[in-house]
Amino acid sequence: MKHILGIDVGGTSIKGAIVNERGEVVTDSFSLPIIKTDNQFEIIDKLIAIIKDFLKMNNAKIDGIGMGIPGSINSEDGIVTYSNNLRWFDLPIVDLLKKEFNVPVKITNDANAAALGENRFGAGKEFSEMIMITLGTGVGGGIIIHNGLYEGNLGKGAELGHITLVMDGLQCSCGRKGCYEMYASASALIRQTKEAMQKHPESLLNEVAIESVNGKTVFDYAKLGDKTANEVLDQYVRYLGEGLINYCNIFRPQCIVLSGGIAKQKEYLLDRLIPFMEKEHYGYPCGPKVVIKTAVLGYDAGIIGAASLLISQN
Amino acid sequence: MKHILGIDVGGTSIKGAIVNERGEVVTDSFSLPIIKTDNQFEIIDKLIAIIKDFLKMNNAKIDGIGMGIPGSINSEDGIVTYSNNLRWFDLPIVDLLKKEFNVPVKITNDANAAALGENRFGAGKEFSEMIMITLGTGVGGGIIIHNGLYEGNLGKGAELGHITLVMDGLQCSCGRKGCYEMYASASALIRQTKEAMQKHPESLLNEVAIESVNGKTVFDYAKLGDKTANEVLDQYVRYLGEGLINYCNIFRPQCIVLSGGIAKQKEYLLDRLIPFMEKEHYGYPCGPKVVIKTAVLGYDAGIIGAASLLISQN
Repeated sequence: MKHILGIDVGGTSIKGAIVNERGEVVTDSFSLPIIKTDNQFEIIDKLIAIIKDFLKMNNAKIDGIGMGIPGSINSEDGIVTYSNNLRWFDLPIVDLLKKEFNVPVKITNDANAAALGENRFGAGKEFSEMIMITLGTGVGGGIIIHNGLYEGNLGKGAELGHITLVMDGLQCSCGRKGCYEMYASASALIRQTKEAMQKHPESLLNEVAIESVNGKTVFDYAKLGDKTANEVLDQYVRYLGEGLINYCNIFRPQCIVLSGGIAKQKEYLLDRLIPFMEKEHYGYPCGPKVVIKTAVLGYDAGIIGAASLLISQN
Repeated sequence: MKHILGIDVGGTSIKGAIVNERGEVVTDSFSLPIIKTDNQFEIIDKLIAIIKDFLKMNNAKIDGIGMGIPGSINSEDGIVTYSNNLRWFDLPIVDLLKKEFNVPVKITNDANAAALGENRFGAGKEFSEMIMITLGTGVGGGIIIHNGLYEGNLGKGAELGHITLVMDGLQCSCGRKGCYEMYASASALIRQTKEAMQKHPESLLNEVAIESVNGKTVFDYAKLGDKTANEVLDQYVRYLGEGLINYCNIFRPQCIVLSGGIAKQKEYLLDRLIPFMEKEHYGYPCGPKVVIKTAVLGYDAGIIGAASLLISQN
């Protein structure tokens, strides 16, 4: 059985572990803190060193390395075009790692890797056609077509958070206005919660210090029956749902998997979202319904997803 | 060389002709007027009869039949789920034609067929990843991935006119509000032109009787330098362009091909649209640009596209 080193590049650290062909993590993981440096090769040198130690300690042989990296990734040429957090710029990371470890190396962006992992081994494993939407700081996306990732020209597609939901709406960090991510991300839900707290001083939400509001707050108070919290969530679900219906109409996938912070609410999210999607006929009264699920791979999702790049479909 | 009967079902007639593997129409075409009848098998009987006569007259043998049909098509099972204009409902047209002609038969919706035709033999033939957007009464779409049509589950995807551009915007016939087609179709441009005429009595556009306004009117008066006409077009190009940028971000295709009535304006449309797309970096400053073209197959596009369903990629 093949063993792949899956590497998940996050906001503060680079984690890695070995994953087998069944998508099981079979070793402990290593974790390399991300240091802010203008010499991008410094962190690569450290990464190579930590991988070598890790392989030695685990007495492990690997058949490939897969990496999920936040930012703009050219997966075809194996180059990190731009990763803001890491200050990586036109970094030929695939060649650097191949040279060192002499195994196949593949990269993609973190959202794509997570989508592939959920498709191979997680919530979407019964489905060949799947969309994954990650509801975190932003809205990320992954497109699974015929059981494989669809990344677009030079790997620069699947930016599913950056479609217009409200033309001339809120300014997005991408430069455009009214993007889906400005209304459906965890950050958006936090903003919507804070706005509602200020507008409704009578709401129980105001028990929470405004600077402590997170994506879970509004769910907690909705469960307590707070009217404002329920209104915030209903409106959020409408934003989220309208975007999902767009993806139903575009891809008519068999399944949409939601991941990221907000998706951790599982049934508390789905029990509102699915009735909305039903009422809207998933965009298309005579079309097949779309299964809506939350991600299941949890903490190791990034590592498993990254490793999946080298694990072929059974 | 294979010869395929391509059949294009339109609003008022069903046209067909034989197409060779190079995408050339090699016979005259037949045309069957669409009669309004509640017996959907009546028109199928007539279609079968006219095909038989047509093959006899042309002394032709065919290797397959491809059909493009407006409406909701289940291309996997070969069934017309619903076609409003034809009053077809759960019609197993593939089985009916196969039984009669004993050759492979494939169907898809008309926008998909047109997209495949342009990809195989038209404006998109250099590109493996292509999106086609049809700007007609509505906005139709076709998705080409790895040189093949992507139709979604049961062939019910690629409804590219039905994504939200303006949440809570204009009521769309699909049941939702603010769909792209309400802002970027030929019908939308006609509505926008009429609204501007009423708002700007000084505009030269008012030389045209309001009931005679069509999708070309505003282009004609923009060429004459009419300020209102130019403003209408600039706003229309923004609507059109924002939706295209959405598709750039989702698919990052190599090429977008525009077809339908408005696309007949060719450079008069592209000379406004491409600078808008450039200014917006096609959605993504570090991404590859997307070639924007207008369709080239013209009058026989529907027939060639339908036949393409049975012509494999070289």
